[in-house]
Amino acid sequence: MPKFPNFAARVNQITGSVFEKFRSKMVTQGENLVKLHIGDTYLPTRFQLPIDRSVLEKHRDYNRYCNTFGVEPLREVLTQKLHADNHLQAEPRHVLVSNGATNALSISVMSVVDPGEEVLILTPAWPFFFGMVKVAGGHIKEVPFYTRLFENPNLDVPECLEEALTPNTVALYVNSPNNPSAKVLAPQHLQQIADFAHKHQLWVISDEAYDGLTFDDRPHISIASLPNMFEQTLSIFTFSKSFMFAGLRLGYVVANETAVKSLNKMMVHQLYSPSTIAQYMMVEPVKTRDQWLPPVRQHYQDLRDLFVNELRIDFPKPEGTYFIFFPADKYLRGRDYWELIETCLDSGVSVAPGDSFGKDYTKYIRLCFTGESPERLEMGIERLNRIFG
Amino acid sequence: MPKFPNFAARVNQITGSVFEKFRSKMVTQGENLVKLHIGDTYLPTRFQLPIDRSVLEKHRDYNRYCNTFGVEPLREVLTQKLHADNHLQAEPRHVLVSNGATNALSISVMSVVDPGEEVLILTPAWPFFFGMVKVAGGHIKEVPFYTRLFENPNLDVPECLEEALTPNTVALYVNSPNNPSAKVLAPQHLQQIADFAHKHQLWVISDEAYDGLTFDDRPHISIASLPNMFEQTLSIFTFSKSFMFAGLRLGYVVANETAVKSLNKMMVHQLYSPSTIAQYMMVEPVKTRDQWLPPVRQHYQDLRDLFVNELRIDFPKPEGTYFIFFPADKYLRGRDYWELIETCLDSGVSVAPGDSFGKDYTKYIRLCFTGESPERLEMGIERLNRIFG
Repeated sequence: MPKFPNFAARVNQITGSVFEKFRSKMVTQGENLVKLHIGDTYLPTRFQLPIDRSVLEKHRDYNRYCNTFGVEPLREVLTQKLHADNHLQAEPRHVLVSNGATNALSISVMSVVDPGEEVLILTPAWPFFFGMVKVAGGHIKEVPFYTRLFENPNLDVPECLEEALTPNTVALYVNSPNNPSAKVLAPQHLQQIADFAHKHQLWVISDEAYDGLTFDDRPHISIASLPNMFEQTLSIFTFSKSFMFAGLRLGYVVANETAVKSLNKMMVHQLYSPSTIAQYMMVEPVKTRDQWLPPVRQHYQDLRDLFVNELRIDFPKPEGTYFIFFPADKYLRGRDYWELIETCLDSGVSVAPGDSFGKDYTKYIRLCFTGESPERLEMGIERLNRIFG
Repeated sequence: MPKFPNFAARVNQITGSVFEKFRSKMVTQGENLVKLHIGDTYLPTRFQLPIDRSVLEKHRDYNRYCNTFGVEPLREVLTQKLHADNHLQAEPRHVLVSNGATNALSISVMSVVDPGEEVLILTPAWPFFFGMVKVAGGHIKEVPFYTRLFENPNLDVPECLEEALTPNTVALYVNSPNNPSAKVLAPQHLQQIADFAHKHQLWVISDEAYDGLTFDDRPHISIASLPNMFEQTLSIFTFSKSFMFAGLRLGYVVANETAVKSLNKMMVHQLYSPSTIAQYMMVEPVKTRDQWLPPVRQHYQDLRDLFVNELRIDFPKPEGTYFIFFPADKYLRGRDYWELIETCLDSGVSVAPGDSFGKDYTKYIRLCFTGESPERLEMGIERLNRIFG
């Protein structure tokens, strides 16, 4: 069902900040305005956070509520990053800073999926996304995809997608670079997905959490940068992966301005806004990413190659992210799948079971090749070789 | 309809972390375990946050994903605070750290309200709470309450509540100290609410965001501390008000262990977890609150008295929070209500319109008496006296 450019009914049932309508008058008054309308304190905090004084003095509102769309310096620098890295002609009004990509995905689903409507999920897919669709009352249609592209690069993508479409389909979830399969979608495949979404007026929820983490000079392409796709796509990014600041809980959505406003309404009802001070702290890392990100990416690629060269398990060579994903059937040797997982644990190496990534992956296993130091990774590989070899 | 101790259907449709079932085996393995199951990086961040090195070195996981229930040192110190200040016999397993009270309220509503069910909201009430009930597909039943208690301290509370009950009622939202009316509920009124909720097996969502901000030595009583009420109550607190760290976006829910687990499942689907480093930073302020909070409270009380003495408008004397809430009808002098609000703005003082606090308050106005310095507050009072006097 053509859903774009419409939103879920719940978006229209809620309002954003009650003060939005007075914003222009408030701006006109400027410093003269004595603000008694918002619940806040003029006092500096009674407890000094262990943060550099220069930062706290530069951002005197660091402890206070911020613009729920995001602090201006961060939205500004993100638009420059989006132009340069993602070829998205975004302006600050197209950027909504969120509490991590998790939150961005949650407000996206809540904003476009009405109860009973269907979301196409290209699988394998990040486990929590399935739950988000359920929380919104939506139905899930899984489309085994990334692993099939590894098996067959000439896969008939349009056929795959058309087969899965029903009259209730309203959105499509795509995640490239893909967790867990480590597939990075090629331009022609992204274009085929875009054509399909455009033809059927589906919202595209593009999870680009692993933006910046592709190997062998493979480009990461934002589907919203393809012709006609900016309006129709909710592009989702995070500071948790290539930026390594998972603990700050920051991410952002890029979308058309109406969508940004709708998603913001949903966000203020879930958590008001992400952290003010964390947002200020991320301005510099964005500005300097060309200095520190390439060596990180190279190091991750080296760690991938360590696994490719030393791990005696068959798996498709990761094109991005920091995962390895493979079917474990042929390594069972009389053990049942869950016994195998437990054998790993008992042998001192933890692996992620595949079943949470989609119903076609109940016999798969996912490994992360960057979560431990190279020495300990070697140890892990040795243990895995003993169990699987 | 007796809902407690049951949860909304959506809670049962989603799962928590996929690794939960392996936790005990992982703990047994300890340091020996090479962790390849989770997507993470072993690298320290490439960008040094402007935070004291001693803090970063003490909390080496500051940039990483944390236990989604909250970091242990914070949950631990919060239980001590809950014992001492709130008379709640909570253990760490009863505490869920959330992304502000907003997020705690959102996951509470999503966890207990099914579509079509009814929530009693004692009004006037915090505007976003209405939206949260709508997002969950619930229906709102407003019960004008706090303002009526100011008018009539002998109000028949049980009658008030019983009148509003329908067969679909599943939860009751109470907020004391109350934003916007500044009412602090007396023990007998809280007991009457507790008796009503207990009798009808309703979940009590107790919004205690203004915990710590009561005046004239009035105690703040947590409804969950009353006999039999701990199990049935979701008690919600924040670091945004008395702690003044709104910009860190941290709050917490106290509830029975099953409820904490249900709410956590909802939370991980909305935002995974609140900030790791922000949680570590809040341990000390909680420990030292008896040193810095009493003078803050006294200062706010002085600011309240400034308004009580100088503002020539009739309003009930605030018992807590930092708000003043009054009906504006008798100050219209031919102006319509919205003209009056705009006159304030045009005269350089912003006030909050009452209509977002409930349908009985469309002609009310809310002022905050702590958001500006005393000098500027005097200026605000002068301007208000000219408009209203």
